[in-house]
Amino acid sequence: GAEESKAASQAESGQKYSNLLVTCQDGLRVITLNRPSKMNAITREMYEEWILALKEAADDPNTVITAITGAGNYYCSGNDLSNFTNINPENMHEISKESGALLNRFVSAFIDFPKPLIGVINGPAIGVSVTVMGLFDAVYATDKSTFNTPFSALGQSPEGCSSYTFPRMMGPSRASEMLLFNKKFTAHEAKEVGLVTEVFPDASFQQEVWPKLQALAKLPFKSLVYSKALTRDMEKDILHQVNDAECDRLVERWTSEDCINAIMNFFSRKK
Amino acid sequence: GAEESKAASQAESGQKYSNLLVTCQDGLRVITLNRPSKMNAITREMYEEWILALKEAADDPNTVITAITGAGNYYCSGNDLSNFTNINPENMHEISKESGALLNRFVSAFIDFPKPLIGVINGPAIGVSVTVMGLFDAVYATDKSTFNTPFSALGQSPEGCSSYTFPRMMGPSRASEMLLFNKKFTAHEAKEVGLVTEVFPDASFQQEVWPKLQALAKLPFKSLVYSKALTRDMEKDILHQVNDAECDRLVERWTSEDCINAIMNFFSRKK
Amino acid sequence: GAEESKAASQAESGQKYSNLLVTCQDGLRVITLNRPSKMNAITREMYEEWILALKEAADDPNTVITAITGAGNYYCSGNDLSNFTNINPENMHEISKESGALLNRFVSAFIDFPKPLIGVINGPAIGVSVTVMGLFDAVYATDKSTFNTPFSALGQSPEGCSSYTFPRMMGPSRASEMLLFNKKFTAHEAKEVGLVTEVFPDASFQQEVWPKLQALAKLPFKSLVYSKALTRDMEKDILHQVNDAECDRLVERWTSEDCINAIMNFFSRKK
Repeated sequence: GAEESKAASQAESGQKYSNLLVTCQDGLRVITLNRPSKMNAITREMYEEWILALKEAADDPNTVITAITGAGNYYCSGNDLSNFTNINPENMHEISKESGALLNRFVSAFIDFPKPLIGVINGPAIGVSVTVMGLFDAVYATDKSTFNTPFSALGQSPEGCSSYTFPRMMGPSRASEMLLFNKKFTAHEAKEVGLVTEVFPDASFQQEVWPKLQALAKLPFKSLVYSKALTRDMEKDILHQVNDAECDRLVERWTSEDCINAIMNFFSRKK
Repeated sequence: GAEESKAASQAESGQKYSNLLVTCQDGLRVITLNRPSKMNAITREMYEEWILALKEAADDPNTVITAITGAGNYYCSGNDLSNFTNINPENMHEISKESGALLNRFVSAFIDFPKPLIGVINGPAIGVSVTVMGLFDAVYATDKSTFNTPFSALGQSPEGCSSYTFPRMMGPSRASEMLLFNKKFTAHEAKEVGLVTEVFPDASFQQEVWPKLQALAKLPFKSLVYSKALTRDMEKDILHQVNDAECDRLVERWTSEDCINAIMNFFSRKK
Repeated sequence: GAEESKAASQAESGQKYSNLLVTCQDGLRVITLNRPSKMNAITREMYEEWILALKEAADDPNTVITAITGAGNYYCSGNDLSNFTNINPENMHEISKESGALLNRFVSAFIDFPKPLIGVINGPAIGVSVTVMGLFDAVYATDKSTFNTPFSALGQSPEGCSSYTFPRMMGPSRASEMLLFNKKFTAHEAKEVGLVTEVFPDASFQQEVWPKLQALAKLPFKSLVYSKALTRDMEKDILHQVNDAECDRLVERWTSEDCINAIMNFFSRKK
């Protein structure tokens, strides 16, 4: 069954990915964020693997639907803040630039992803793992999931094209609640504003969501791809511009006092 | 009363339209889709008549508000699939092109319609009759109505500018549920996402909705037309581009294996 | 406390503003519309003062968050219709042009406002005081507030960029209900369509909303300003074009028979 296939595929992909599990069966490809002990926080290495996994999904002729989910209780806790530490202050601007370029490639992989992409949100989602959902084609969430983008609290600014997709999806005021004012949305609130497509009770989430995705993977492939292209291609150039502007701003933010102080506070609170 | 006037107008328009009833009284023009035995499925002839009826409504100085509704229990079951049958395979590409051109003119008639246009949705709505609602100015629906665009299930792709209007109205994920994943919306779900403006109990639908429209038809005509122009004209060029792209894609889809197989299955299931 | 500071600031700003109260403390600037006996209807003088108060808020380095609220039971009853009376008919076109230019500058002050702007809607809101909310970053409302833009009933047409922001925020049909068909929204209806961010019980509104804003005023200033810029700057040129088109149309409307008759009826009903 699915579990055996997952295990087999995990064995296969074991060499390729340290931070992801990737399976593919009957047209449904599942990319599982697999750092559960770190709440699936995204390290630099994991960004690179996620980009690669999306490329594989796009290129594989047997992949119709691609789902992204998380191992453990979290979906994803966003950017691993340890990406910001152990940095020699002399290299800070250089590393900030490199991080911006990496983020830009990561978000571009979502903008350009040509097939239906579905989020299977198994728990809390934070930061960039939330913002790129504006580029997904459906988001199915357990009622235990939450959605939080505490950018300004950390001295940062929006990414993942959310400065463009969120105001257009939910109106500027509700977008500002998330992107400027750090409001954490419940799954039901996220559904009200269109970020989440459907909310499931946590107890039956896994049993309900996967058969749904298996059914979608049986739809005519070309109609799905062409239909997605019709709804998305007109905005691709704008989305890449937005991505560039957001990453440029973050490169500035990451070396700002606001951000450095906020992250130092974060780590001192943890001790 | 309204019934007599409807009868009189029906007599008048009897020569002009085989598939529509058109009445006009006190500024309110009502276009009724009138093939109830076929759930108001749209034949080629009926597309032409609908285009003509919109042109008449636009040109008539006595028409302030134009409403579209269906006779019988359905609002409209979409494209009459018999449009696809009885086609000599040798002519298939030519007829597909002609059908694309007809659809393009049909959708253009909605894009360019200069006066308030209101849907009075008396029952289930399918396909293109749903997608063009993104170009309406209000949609009043009975709670027995449903909204369904099963494009990918039929090997097809979105039209009616829905690939543009639906993601902007309801966000990309909820639009994908309809346009890619064939989800049928109830009237209340359609209201939640902004496709329907107001839902009425079926028992009182007709008694409630027509007086509402009669009142709207008494508002200052020029303010309505100029206000609609302000909200719509800026997007007209884009909408025509979207319409072209959608029709081009459908011309390709209609002669594809995906679509031919899906339609053959549809007719074999019916036997 | 806040009340003393308000009184002090009122004394200060007493010379500058006849129709507003302006206070600023700990990063939170509050602009209070202060013609409660006229339900805070906006005279020409008050438009000028509101523009000036926004400029001050933008320029003051100590202002992080700017809130707008109303004194008394109304938030704002919109354009003071006495702006239309006592006009020598010979000067009507000239005065209409001047009013259009004033409205244009007023709306531009919102389009260009660079910091987070929050509506604290303490009661009914009408006309232009509603339409500019599409340019706010959050709108907190008492459950006694209502939202009404009766443009076509008064022979007029939308302003405040609402012909652009409302269809994009709530979908074209729900926008038409407000902008074409004069529907008055309750606070909860306004929240459903994204115009209002949060609704509070009237009894606790003032106690709940101000601490919330005081907390927001402590967030890193630059992250707020840069984040707002990312979400808004891309649309600034379009918004100014929309503002121009709306004001041009209103200059025509204000001297039209539709509008003159509607306003004469309004004043004759009041006697």
